[in-house]
Order: sequence, then structure tokens, then C-alpha cells
Amino acid sequence: MNTKRDKRPRRPRKSVVDRFFARGHSWLTRADSQDVVISSRVRLARNLATHPFPERCTPEKRKEIWDTLRTVVLGLPELEKAISVEMTALTELDKLFLLERHLISRDFMETGEGAGLVALHDGRVSIMVNEEDHVRLQVVLPGLELTSAWEAASRLDDGIDAAVGYAFSSRLGYLTACPSNVGTGMRTSVMVHLPGLVLSQEMEPIVRGLTKIGLTVRGLRGEGSEAAGNIFQISNQVTLGEGEGEIASNLSQIVQEVVEHEVNARMRLWQKNPVILQDHILRAYGVLSHARLLTTKEALDFLSSLRLGVILGILDGVGINDLRKLMEECQPAHLQKAVGRRLSSRERDFERARLVREVLRPEEEAGGATPREVE
Amino acid sequence: MNTKRDKRPRRPRKSVVDRFFARGHSWLTRADSQDVVISSRVRLARNLATHPFPERCTPEKRKEIWDTLRTVVLGLPELEKAISVEMTALTELDKLFLLERHLISRDFMETGEGAGLVALHDGRVSIMVNEEDHVRLQVVLPGLELTSAWEAASRLDDGIDAAVGYAFSSRLGYLTACPSNVGTGMRTSVMVHLPGLVLSQEMEPIVRGLTKIGLTVRGLRGEGSEAAGNIFQISNQVTLGEGEGEIASNLSQIVQEVVEHEVNARMRLWQKNPVILQDHILRAYGVLSHARLLTTKEALDFLSSLRLGVILGILDGVGINDLRKLMEECQPAHLQKAVGRRLSSRERDFERARLVREVLRPEEEAGGATPREVE
Repeated sequence: MNTKRDKRPRRPRKSVVDRFFARGHSWLTRADSQDVVISSRVRLARNLATHPFPERCTPEKRKEIWDTLRTVVLGLPELEKAISVEMTALTELDKLFLLERHLISRDFMETGEGAGLVALHDGRVSIMVNEEDHVRLQVVLPGLELTSAWEAASRLDDGIDAAVGYAFSSRLGYLTACPSNVGTGMRTSVMVHLPGLVLSQEMEPIVRGLTKIGLTVRGLRGEGSEAAGNIFQISNQVTLGEGEGEIASNLSQIVQEVVEHEVNARMRLWQKNPVILQDHILRAYGVLSHARLLTTKEALDFLSSLRLGVILGILDGVGINDLRKLMEECQPAHLQKAVGRRLSSRERDFERARLVREVLRPEEEAGGATPREVE
Repeated sequence: MNTKRDKRPRRPRKSVVDRFFARGHSWLTRADSQDVVISSRVRLARNLATHPFPERCTPEKRKEIWDTLRTVVLGLPELEKAISVEMTALTELDKLFLLERHLISRDFMETGEGAGLVALHDGRVSIMVNEEDHVRLQVVLPGLELTSAWEAASRLDDGIDAAVGYAFSSRLGYLTACPSNVGTGMRTSVMVHLPGLVLSQEMEPIVRGLTKIGLTVRGLRGEGSEAAGNIFQISNQVTLGEGEGEIASNLSQIVQEVVEHEVNARMRLWQKNPVILQDHILRAYGVLSHARLLTTKEALDFLSSLRLGVILGILDGVGINDLRKLMEECQPAHLQKAVGRRLSSRERDFERARLVREVLRPEEEAGGATPREVE
């Protein structure tokens, strides 16, 4: 399926253990945010001064807002190649797919006429029109790039504001449907991979510390979700009394500290007994490369261990990006879109396991060939 | 390590799934006891008419009994190549090793002077002298062979009786230290592998039924032990009022029924959804072939699944006997004997995982080569 992956030249194979000990362990010497931070996200909530909040609008008014904003947004130079689609035109499966891509919210799935999405194909920029607010503008960048994400969002924001005029109070800032967003209307968040802190049971004090300074820590799927795959979202809660640039750079600094904690935890685990980490990662590989049924949670958890294995140099040949892509493709709607039809839960587990094996052991799946270690 | 295994000619490799579906599933058409019954055991408890029970003897008297019985037993034609050893001459590790081989009892490990073992190297015949009784004679045969085991035990028993004269009452039968053994002094048992009944949660009614007709069902390590690897011992409890041959043949018949239940359970699991069974077995293979640490319980459980996989034709190239041997070698004292020194629990888990990988993926362990499916 990923032909780029298959074209990689074959190197002479070494035992996993040999490779494990031969590595220089460069990760021990630096706290690289790229090993820990998956993505950075900035979201702005905005409303037109000329219309009531979406919930107070008639369907006709909402349609009017959608038409106006759609035209304005697609007219921005950065978004001229964006797709735009109304929610009512989408199937349930399509909506779930967009939800799994983090392009729409769960609430947005239920909205009626006049609610629509404008987004770039790569998902870096997306705008929900008539969710809770008229405009929900989101910029997502890989790695720890909150300031760049803020700058990109700010540029787009200025473009829309210039065309439509936002509801703004000199005392309160941007006006939003929910008081928790009033002010900057901004939420910044990063998605971080913290297997070291989870394995060494150090997450609790970290979460407590982050909460104390006004941040929220959640699982992959947002509020109330479990942290499948040891992936967490850290986001700001405070929108009043802080400048937007300040919010982004503050969160960046704090995340950099979390990165250092995570890297230290990995290092301590490694130094205490590398075989425990090695066992953890290779078992995950063993299950992923052999299971015939995998739940989403299992797949994410084990792939998360593989991600750590790649960073530690225990697993080779499969890249961080392959794994990130696989974690996305493993999700229910992604699987069903790929197969082209609705699948039962059991069928999804089967397809998920097949997909994972296809990526981890393409030769075995082709039939006849020898399965191989991730090389 | 097992050179025979390595000399097997290489066949062109097929995907595990291909092999899985290509098979004729001969196991579906017959209830073969060899697929379920691992071994059959007959044990006789006997005492000399001339001496008090071991517990009532002085060390000198026990020594005298040991010397007498040792000479008599080694004089029997079947046992002229047997080894004989006094318990006091053995290290703790040696005793644990013999316990894991089912050649001595846990109580026997604690005995003092005059307690000894005579046994054939292959473990088919073993005699504990001065355990609870003067003579504990055991014959173990692979598969469902209770009658043959009984006949072999009976011949040896006659030979010893002729030389030393057993304590026997025409009213009660053979006299034994514990009243539960008085009469035939015989215990018959079979070791059975019941993954089908365990996976389909049908063990409970089977155990209840067997208990009702006077049989005992226990885990691998005897009384109070958990059934690691889905391996159970079924044995008779009643020793009075039944002939010895009758006990053996009754148990045989009942075990044959258990075999049919097990094979039916496997068949139902298979027909209901083969992928569940396949997933169960291949995950076990995935973990065993990759883990760097394995507890005894884990190893036995997963190897038990592999055994089922071989019988179902899902796994190939590793034989039932390789697995039986591996299950034995995975045990703590066996591992330590192989390494030649005492090992901590963590060290044993490491050695156990290494040993299992060595058998399942010899090429990977040799370093540099491609790991392969069990082929």
C-alpha cells in the first residue's frame, strides 16, 4: 500500500538485539521535542458582528453565514485549494472520518443546515462554520510548532476579519457563544507521546502540576477519553487576560519541560533495566505482526510502543511517520473508508490487524514470502 | 540446540493463513486422544511387612530399607540401567529439577537419611523409597496408555513383592501410611490438554461431573496448583472396593469422554469463528517469538496455545514433542540446570525467553539471519 516504504533498499539483516546494542543512543543526550511532541494546534473561536450566535440563528440565517464565510475563506490566498462541504451533504461515515482526522468536533456531526467545513487536504488548516461559533479556525503543524501555528492562524484570522468584521469588545475581547472562550477565543494544544512517564508511573504528578497552572490534560480523543497509545493532549484553558502570542509561547515552554521529563523517564527506564523496555517494545511488535484481530485501543497502545522502539533504536526500518499514519488509518471510520463499506466491530478488528501486518510485514502478507523483522 | 530440528529440509514458505485454509482439518473428523492426552500415570503405594511405616522408623531403619529396596529394584531386569540416588546427596536445585520432572514429590524433597530415588533416565519408571510409604512406584507413558502403564507397574510390583514381602491384609488389601491409599494403594492419573474447553468456558461443568464420580481434577503441579497452559491432571481418588485393572480401565473410558468433549469444543470454536482461534494462537506465537522476559506461567500458557496451533494445522514445523520438551525446559530448575548456576527470578525470565526464541526462531538467535515464521 505504501509503495515508498517498499522501495527502500534492503540492508543486510542484523538481529534485533545486535542493533539494539550497537546504537549510539543519541536520544539519551538530548531532549528532542520531535521524539515526544506529535503535533501543535491553535484554534480560534470567532463570530460575525452582524449575526446572532449560530444557536440563535434560523436555518436560513445560518445558510447565509455559511455562504458568506465560505466565499471569504476560499478567497484567501492560503486557502484557494481548500475543499468546502456542508455537513448535511455528508454520510455518517464521512463525518466520523473527519472527526478521526480532528477536522471537526463531535458536536459538529449533529449540526443541521448551514454548518460546513473548509479545509486543506493535508488537514493543516480547517475552518468549521456554524459550530458553536460562526468561525472555528484551526491550524495544526507537526512537532512543537505552536508559535508558527499561531502565526499562520493569525494571518488567516486577519484576512477573515477584514472581510466580515468580528464581534469584538474592547473590554472583553472576542465575543463567543460560550463564556469560557471569551477574550482571545484561542485554544492552543499539543499532542504528546508519553510512554516513558506512563511506564514509570509518573503521569499523575505531571498531570496534577499541569492542572495547577491552568492547563488541561486529556486522552487522544479529547474530553473524557482514555489515553490510548499513551498519547495525551495538553491544552490551555485560560482565554482572558493573556495575549494570544503569550499563550502560545507559554504553552511551548511548559511542553518543553514535559518533553524533558519524558526523556528523563525513558533514560531512567533504560538505565535501570533496558531488557524491560526491550521486552515491552518487542512484545508489542510480536502481537502486532501476528494478531488476526485488533481493537482500536490495542492497536494504538502497541503502535505507541513501536514508536518508542523506533526512537530508542530497538526497531528499525519502519519510520515515525509510517506509524503516525498507521495510527490514523487504524481508526474505525478510516478503516471503513479504505474498505469502502460499513464494517461490523469484528470485521473492523480483522481489517485493522490485516492493515497493521501489511505495513509491518509486507512480505508475509503478499503470501509465500518469509516474514521478517521490522528491518 | 536441537540439531534434528535444524536439519529438517526447507520447504517453500507459504503464508500462515494459506496453510491454515489449505489443511484438510483431519482433527475435525476424529476424537484422537493423542491430541489431548499428554501422558498416563500409574502409582502404587506399598510397604514392607517387616518394618514400620517410614515416619515411625529411626534413620538407621530407613537406611536399612533403602539399601534393601535399592538392591532389589536394581536387580529387576527392567531396571538394571536405572539410576539410584539418596535425597541427602542432592542439592536443592537437583531436587527441584526432579520435582519438575514429576519424579519426586514436594514432601520427598524434605526427607532425611534413607530416602532415595531409583529411576530410569527417560522417567518412565521411578520409585521413591521412604516417602510416605516404603515404596512409591510410578510408571508414566505418553498418550492415553493407562492399561499398559498399569501392566508395567504390576510386573515391577510383583518382582519387588516376591523379594521383600509387602504388608497386605486379606480384608483391607495393601496397607499404607495414609488411610486414603489403603486397598489397591493405586492412583491412576492422566495429564490432559484442554484449551478448547477452557477457551469456550466449559471446564466448570466438566470438573463438577468428574468430581461427582469420584475423580480429582488439578493443575499441572498437583494439588492446589493453577492450571498453567490449560494442562490438567485427572486422577482417581477411590482405592477401596475396586480392582486395580478396573480402576485403570474405568479412568481410561472417562478420559476418552473428556477427549471427545475437548475435540467438540475445539470444533465448535473453529466453526463459530476460526479467526478467533487463529488470533489466539498467532498472538501466542508473536509474544513467544519476541518477548525478552517470560514468566513460567506465561510460557506454559502461550506454549499451550502453540500446541493447539500445531494440532489445528495453524502452526507448522515445530512438533508436539518439541513443545512438550520446551514446556519442561522452561521450568525454573530445568533452566538453572541448563545454565549451570542459580538464577534470580528476573534472570530466569530472561533465560526462559531466550530459550523459547531459540527453539521457535533459531535463525534469528544465531544473529544476522532473518527471523522466520514457525515453518
